[in-house]
Amino acid sequence: MYVIGERINGMFENVKEAIREKNEQIIQDLAKRQIAAGATALDVNVGPAARDAEGAMLWLVESIRSVTDAPLVIDTAKWDIMSAVIPQVPGEKVLNSSKADPDIAAQYVALAQENGAGLIGLTIDADGVPGNVDKRVELGAQLITVAMEGGLEMDKLFIDPIILPVNVAPKNPGHCIEAIVQLKGFADPPPHLLLGLSNVSQRCSNRELINRSYLVMAMSNGLDAAIMDPLDTELMDAAITAELLMEKMIYCDSYLQAARH
Amino acid sequence: MYVIGERINGMFENVKEAIREKNEQIIQDLAKRQIAAGATALDVNVGPAARDAEGAMLWLVESIRSVTDAPLVIDTAKWDIMSAVIPQVPGEKVLNSSKADPDIAAQYVALAQENGAGLIGLTIDADGVPGNVDKRVELGAQLITVAMEGGLEMDKLFIDPIILPVNVAPKNPGHCIEAIVQLKGFADPPPHLLLGLSNVSQRCSNRELINRSYLVMAMSNGLDAAIMDPLDTELMDAAITAELLMEKMIYCDSYLQAARH
Repeated sequence: MYVIGERINGMFENVKEAIREKNEQIIQDLAKRQIAAGATALDVNVGPAARDAEGAMLWLVESIRSVTDAPLVIDTAKWDIMSAVIPQVPGEKVLNSSKADPDIAAQYVALAQENGAGLIGLTIDADGVPGNVDKRVELGAQLITVAMEGGLEMDKLFIDPIILPVNVAPKNPGHCIEAIVQLKGFADPPPHLLLGLSNVSQRCSNRELINRSYLVMAMSNGLDAAIMDPLDTELMDAAITAELLMEKMIYCDSYLQAARH
Repeated sequence: MYVIGERINGMFENVKEAIREKNEQIIQDLAKRQIAAGATALDVNVGPAARDAEGAMLWLVESIRSVTDAPLVIDTAKWDIMSAVIPQVPGEKVLNSSKADPDIAAQYVALAQENGAGLIGLTIDADGVPGNVDKRVELGAQLITVAMEGGLEMDKLFIDPIILPVNVAPKNPGHCIEAIVQLKGFADPPPHLLLGLSNVSQRCSNRELINRSYLVMAMSNGLDAAIMDPLDTELMDAAITAELLMEKMIYCDSYLQAARH
């Protein structure tokens, strides 16, 4: 499982404050704790409030890079910021994210390729988030095609079918799982399938229960990457147990600990 | 989800003792608590140690029937006991279980039909538990065919692909899920697909975590019935949340409570 830690995001008060006060230690602590908890990579998002978004992103990248070699997932919806920042990120990196419109996706694929980066592509286009499975799969297939045309290898492409909160879009969790099943079959080797997990439970009660139940359901249908909270121990335990049950690791009594090292 | 409560089983010390001492209250308490916790039906098993197994089974049935109308799942591997007991069980009942050999299954289907009962059929035959998916599906299809020939409706047939413990049979959890997916497509309407859940974690550490992770994974692939412990609150919470995420119920903040009534 490719676990992308979600905690370095200016949406959270402590990170917002750390960015404002240039407090490296808070950021580095979050980076180290997420990696120790089992994160494969770290999402980096300055949040909506940052004034100098490019500068803030570069400061975050630099702060994190000095404590870990883990892939950094540069999370911004703005092309200007993405294209300016990506060449300056040392080590492994992933662009988060491109929409599926072919001309937009082609730009992002080119930027990823020029910088040896991975790319997260969303199944969303100028018409917005699809309301059904077919359109999600169509947009996912479009992303695969553009990636292949641009020479991006499938193991560097992450397709995100976009999960919406179950309390406002009750059909959505099922649609995403069905899209994951279908998109896994579109290329061999297949692209990664990814979700921004926490969104499934926005403004719900029992958020953690909903998150971990849905993660395990999606994993058993082909999900192999998620932007999620590795500091949620029960969530990580559920993910590791799902991997055990899919024979991605061998059972031992201490398999939960073993998987974290 | 068709939840069959597993707790009235002579394998458990308190039930074994209650049978020996004819202590109705212990049994009735277990029946009421399992139903209150969300069980649809109750498994009834005298356990390996009972001397007069037929008498013990009938005593259990009578004790339980005086406190609930829930379907009783008569759990014995012995044909003599099954065929003697079933006609004496008032109300809804399910035979647990038949093997898949056509001659044996036909006998059980006939007994179920004569008594208006449901039937659990195991994907096991004279050669034992299959070591692969194909044989499981073949035996499941055989059970479906025999049931159809005997006039048993699909919503009265429960096919159990037989889960083995993940610590000794690591491929097994995956095999069962794949068999569930395939067998769901063999008839329209499909039969129920069922697992004896607790077996997946026999002699494992983290038993409850493994049980609830696997339950949710299997549910998202078509499992719609399980013999399990409804008194394990976290397990029931996970099952209810999986149903929410498959749009079998509508979200409200108190969905966990709502589902239990």
